[in-house]
Amino acid sequence: MPSAKTQPARGMRDFLPVDVRKREYVIGVIKSVYERYGFEPLETPAVENIETLMGKYGEEGNQLIFKILKRGEHEKTGEADLALRYDLTVPLARVVGQYQNELPKFFKRYQIQPVWRADRPARGRFREFYQCDVDVLGSRSMVVEAELIAAASDALVALGFNDFVIRVNHRQVLIGLGDRAGIRHDHIEPALTTIDKLDKIGVEGVEKELSARIGPTSTTKLVDFFRELASLDQAADIASEEASAMKEKALNAAILGRLVEFVGDHEKGSRGVEDLRSIIELSEGTSAARRIRLDPSLARGLSYYTGAIIEINVSDLTGSLGGGGRYDNLVGMFLGKDVPACGFSLGLERIIVVMSEREMFPPELISSPADVMVTIWNEDSIAESIALATELRREGLRVDLYPEADKMGKQFKYASSRGIPFVLILGDDERAHGELAIKNMKSGEQIRLPFELLKTSPQRNVQHADDQTVKSKRNIEALLKWLRNGSKAGEAGDSIKPGA
Amino acid sequence: MPSAKTQPARGMRDFLPVDVRKREYVIGVIKSVYERYGFEPLETPAVENIETLMGKYGEEGNQLIFKILKRGEHEKTGEADLALRYDLTVPLARVVGQYQNELPKFFKRYQIQPVWRADRPARGRFREFYQCDVDVLGSRSMVVEAELIAAASDALVALGFNDFVIRVNHRQVLIGLGDRAGIRHDHIEPALTTIDKLDKIGVEGVEKELSARIGPTSTTKLVDFFRELASLDQAADIASEEASAMKEKALNAAILGRLVEFVGDHEKGSRGVEDLRSIIELSEGTSAARRIRLDPSLARGLSYYTGAIIEINVSDLTGSLGGGGRYDNLVGMFLGKDVPACGFSLGLERIIVVMSEREMFPPELISSPADVMVTIWNEDSIAESIALATELRREGLRVDLYPEADKMGKQFKYASSRGIPFVLILGDDERAHGELAIKNMKSGEQIRLPFELLKTSPQRNVQHADDQTVKSKRNIEALLKWLRNGSKAGEAGDSIKPGA
Repeated sequence: MPSAKTQPARGMRDFLPVDVRKREYVIGVIKSVYERYGFEPLETPAVENIETLMGKYGEEGNQLIFKILKRGEHEKTGEADLALRYDLTVPLARVVGQYQNELPKFFKRYQIQPVWRADRPARGRFREFYQCDVDVLGSRSMVVEAELIAAASDALVALGFNDFVIRVNHRQVLIGLGDRAGIRHDHIEPALTTIDKLDKIGVEGVEKELSARIGPTSTTKLVDFFRELASLDQAADIASEEASAMKEKALNAAILGRLVEFVGDHEKGSRGVEDLRSIIELSEGTSAARRIRLDPSLARGLSYYTGAIIEINVSDLTGSLGGGGRYDNLVGMFLGKDVPACGFSLGLERIIVVMSEREMFPPELISSPADVMVTIWNEDSIAESIALATELRREGLRVDLYPEADKMGKQFKYASSRGIPFVLILGDDERAHGELAIKNMKSGEQIRLPFELLKTSPQRNVQHADDQTVKSKRNIEALLKWLRNGSKAGEAGDSIKPGA
Repeated sequence: MPSAKTQPARGMRDFLPVDVRKREYVIGVIKSVYERYGFEPLETPAVENIETLMGKYGEEGNQLIFKILKRGEHEKTGEADLALRYDLTVPLARVVGQYQNELPKFFKRYQIQPVWRADRPARGRFREFYQCDVDVLGSRSMVVEAELIAAASDALVALGFNDFVIRVNHRQVLIGLGDRAGIRHDHIEPALTTIDKLDKIGVEGVEKELSARIGPTSTTKLVDFFRELASLDQAADIASEEASAMKEKALNAAILGRLVEFVGDHEKGSRGVEDLRSIIELSEGTSAARRIRLDPSLARGLSYYTGAIIEINVSDLTGSLGGGGRYDNLVGMFLGKDVPACGFSLGLERIIVVMSEREMFPPELISSPADVMVTIWNEDSIAESIALATELRREGLRVDLYPEADKMGKQFKYASSRGIPFVLILGDDERAHGELAIKNMKSGEQIRLPFELLKTSPQRNVQHADDQTVKSKRNIEALLKWLRNGSKAGEAGDSIKPGA
């Protein structure tokens, strides 16, 4: 028999049940936080017309887009007319263009879907990965930035993170800094890229690289500015947590002061500084308050940002847990008129990496696929086992049913190997006494419970409420209680007596 | 400013918030039912190696697979090395091959993900659509068929369906019927395709088409068989629901009897009839009992089925709500040894079409994006509005915050247009009295509530439990109560007095 290749495609992953549960847990928490902020869900197709995506992500982006062959006759020509979604922002811009009359004036949407990039796969870098985006379209108010930051912060807190830093900067402030430092306009982009590495290569490293890139004259003033910021940070270094919150506040105020001085009356730069001041003030009452840190060295790669830029980091992860910013011009490419927009994207894979390493997942997530397993005593009692499973499922229990009339030992072993905490047995002796046996797979303890009235007759499907149903319900409840209380058999009610 | 094309790609759809909520509702119900049966979630990549998919779906399938260009240098060659997932069964077979040592002996998985087919788009036929698959691998027991049928039935019942028919047949029975009718082996496939049209073209139509395809001699015996089945159906036609359940049971028994007679000692055929008998018996105690209907004319297209085949229909939908069956040979293509398997797939899009037409969605799904909207009185009070929103979100309310200090009338109008039932106002007068105003957007009713203690101070982020927090909590609770009780202001507690 031929055996085909079974690996997933390069850079892609299969998610077995435990992985899916982890992912769904994280997505569920993020969603519920975003819903609390009044964001609504949007979904777009995995596949876009190729011209929708090409040219939106720079030359490197164009190369990393997965392109899909035209169908039928055209497959031979090698022409591609479709492509896989590369991010969630360009599809959002397209959607706003397409449904402008149906969407509210302020469109607050979240979108949690996979994207595909033909990057070279590496540790933690995949060709299919999820983005969790949240965006507000239609307002230039800094309330939007404050809300986005608070929502992302709340989501991380709800997942159990407590040590992240929200770095905030502003594109126009960066341009102001560059102008005031006397850097030529065509040198600003490369200068920003170098400054962005400040936390990795330090002030001296930046100075060296900048000097080589844009010449020593314009370097000096800018580097002096960042050297002074670094000294502010060291001066404010205090230990206790309450004090640390005060420190962040004082430090942000000091940095704002230095920015005001340096940028002066540079029009765009000074407006950017005021935006930053607003964001900090508006965030005071939110969970982000203690965590926001002005960082004039933050640049972020994407060229479509026009205002505030944001990145969230934890110390044990290279790269960020998420990032975002304001992009007031992108939607215009689809709509023909500008729509102000600001968004934030949490990286699902990175969040999961850190949560796994720190063991932050609730243990019940990765435990058992079912609350109880019903065994099959012999070929003749299969229908009774199915009826019992049906009854318990109706009560909301997750019930596995062993599918074959194997030896009991084999069935027990299977339940154990799957981590299922209880098995139910309808043996000859039990059935003769109108009972069933429950075995706790951890303690080995086994008790009996009246079962007779649990039995399903054809009429049970018809709704009625006679004595039999009531008694049957009481038995089910005793059983459920016992299952839910685990091995504490004493609490399971009067009807339970210890058994074989 | 250039304005790009904004439609989604041909045959693909954007899902705006109301659509997403409908889809998530259906998926959530299906998932929770499958979890109750002990099924576990699996996810596989959207993209597979092209050789994993090619040749698995017949020649027509090959043509409908979306193929992805090799990256980089190779893009010019027009060569495709990847392809979009075409169904969820082939990836499952690959996964079982890849992770055989990690998976349990009986692998019960559900998988709810999109698939892509380059079909010609039509009403209700899309190029991207979701499948909701549930499969059991590792057992030949008919318990598996009974469990799958019960799970699909429970899922549909949980969604509010009560009028579906579960048609069941068996591939080996079909082969037995063909053999015993004297049909040549190479004529059996086309004969089955014709018989599958029985409910559309009737016995006479089938007779005519069969006669043309396989000749009149072998047609007669087979057509007589189906003519007799049709007369059984008419004879059993009784009205009331209870009687109708009896009718199904009697009818299934009669059909089984006729199959036993017709198939006789045909080895595969008679074993298939016994499988069908088991499935019906084992389903007695499940929600599927009244709904199962043996239908010897059911053939289903996919060639990989080897045993039972199943299809679920409602009268107001051409095509099925879902279908499935046993396929004991497919996994072997990846594993090198056969693994018995049986599965069922619900069609999400069709379920949604019928539910929408029948208005089966809970009304709250398509109502408001938020429980309450906080307004912004003026530029100076923005931070207080944000703090109020933060406090309410902490209590689990879904709170929208109007982002700009527009005129109140404009903010109210926005809330109304979005269907948000309440707005909160922190006006000058309210704040001077330490209060806030709540407006019911439907009735226009407006009341006031003490707000002073709601105000957030920096210490609120630190956990403590002094008097102030307690009082603040009490106010929040009164507010929440009022919001949750709608316009019944009297129930909102002592602290609320009617306002402006």
